[in-house]
Amino acid sequence: MLRIDIISGVPELLRSPLDHSIVGRARENNLVEVHTHDLREYSEDKHHKIDDAPYGGGAGMVMTAQPIFSCIRKLQSERTYDDVLFTAADGKKFEQKDANKLSLRKNIIILCGHYKGVDQRVRDELITGEFSIGDFVLSGGELPALVMTDAVIRLLPGVLGDAESALTDSFQDDLLEPPVYTRPAEFEGMEVPVVLRSGDHKKIAEWRSDMAIERTKQRRPDLYKKFNKKN
Amino acid sequence: MLRIDIISGVPELLRSPLDHSIVGRARENNLVEVHTHDLREYSEDKHHKIDDAPYGGGAGMVMTAQPIFSCIRKLQSERTYDDVLFTAADGKKFEQKDANKLSLRKNIIILCGHYKGVDQRVRDELITGEFSIGDFVLSGGELPALVMTDAVIRLLPGVLGDAESALTDSFQDDLLEPPVYTRPAEFEGMEVPVVLRSGDHKKIAEWRSDMAIERTKQRRPDLYKKFNKKN
Repeated sequence: MLRIDIISGVPELLRSPLDHSIVGRARENNLVEVHTHDLREYSEDKHHKIDDAPYGGGAGMVMTAQPIFSCIRKLQSERTYDDVLFTAADGKKFEQKDANKLSLRKNIIILCGHYKGVDQRVRDELITGEFSIGDFVLSGGELPALVMTDAVIRLLPGVLGDAESALTDSFQDDLLEPPVYTRPAEFEGMEVPVVLRSGDHKKIAEWRSDMAIERTKQRRPDLYKKFNKKN
Repeated sequence: MLRIDIISGVPELLRSPLDHSIVGRARENNLVEVHTHDLREYSEDKHHKIDDAPYGGGAGMVMTAQPIFSCIRKLQSERTYDDVLFTAADGKKFEQKDANKLSLRKNIIILCGHYKGVDQRVRDELITGEFSIGDFVLSGGELPALVMTDAVIRLLPGVLGDAESALTDSFQDDLLEPPVYTRPAEFEGMEVPVVLRSGDHKKIAEWRSDMAIERTKQRRPDLYKKFNKKN
């Protein structure tokens, strides 16, 4: 079973997304283990400080090496970790294929970064992979860690009720998904496309494939190029 | 003051990230208003259902139009919204410049999508902007909504203690940030670069600029190209 250890200076922030919806249910059903660790508990500073001013001056605080080294080394003394990941604005862009890969691991640590960074010695010495979820700046790495955790957990066997569901997701075949509709057939004068109500499965599959290609072409020419090369 | 209304089928999931850290403090200090809305409360279905099987068959459930129309129309009857945003895997990639723009708005609605989608009539009729935070699939749009909320709130006046901090972030100048270090000067034999301890501000600025350019060149050739064009 996959085990994810998330290390953070604000572990309370992680709570509700880990306790609800698909991730919450997967944990309840013992399909995954997620543990959170409070960095402050590992600080040897008498005020439990976990950050300090940057060398060379400048705004913002930098996360100190000592609590992170202590926490990660303690975890590593208890079991072997396949990856020690760090969430950072300058990391590799996290993509579906990374989620697929991580879902096959046994033990992962995710260290949540802080928006002004972490002492470089942590990154040089302990971290085996650095991920960014996008070109925007967040207060900390907690939301990116939750995003990675969610993307990975929903791929684990048994987590999604319908096994087909995850495989037909966007990005698994480099195409976006076609438009979807549900009841009623007419809502405030707006109708569901006739083909979807036809019961003709071949036509429906064709329409969906056409719309998926069309939507990808319009919205994501970069993905469309990739798809075109393969097909 | 900016007001953000987040609409979700699992509003409990949103709680801890909105209550802690920078976003939590900004709300406490009345620098921003964030309200969450439970879609189930707007469902006219007797079991408060908010999703149904897709027309044309297939795996997964699709979010129904009625509760979303009812919730958004009620909010719109109370005040004018600049944007009604939807989080979707096939939306426009959310970037720092989008966060910058949204931070200047007055009222925003964010509708959290569901991984198998929302009735297309909602998107056609109510949504003014669709954002994706990356090429990976999540269980729902709650984490992307939280990511956008965090990215926007930290830009609001008064939210960051040190005004300089947000302006020197990654991406604001198309460069990644240079490595950072904090005390101690030596940790387990690993030393902080001498220049950062020199007190020579001109040299430090040069070193940081060199390292930022070097790191961007190595890790993000796409950003480096953009930076090079401008400079």
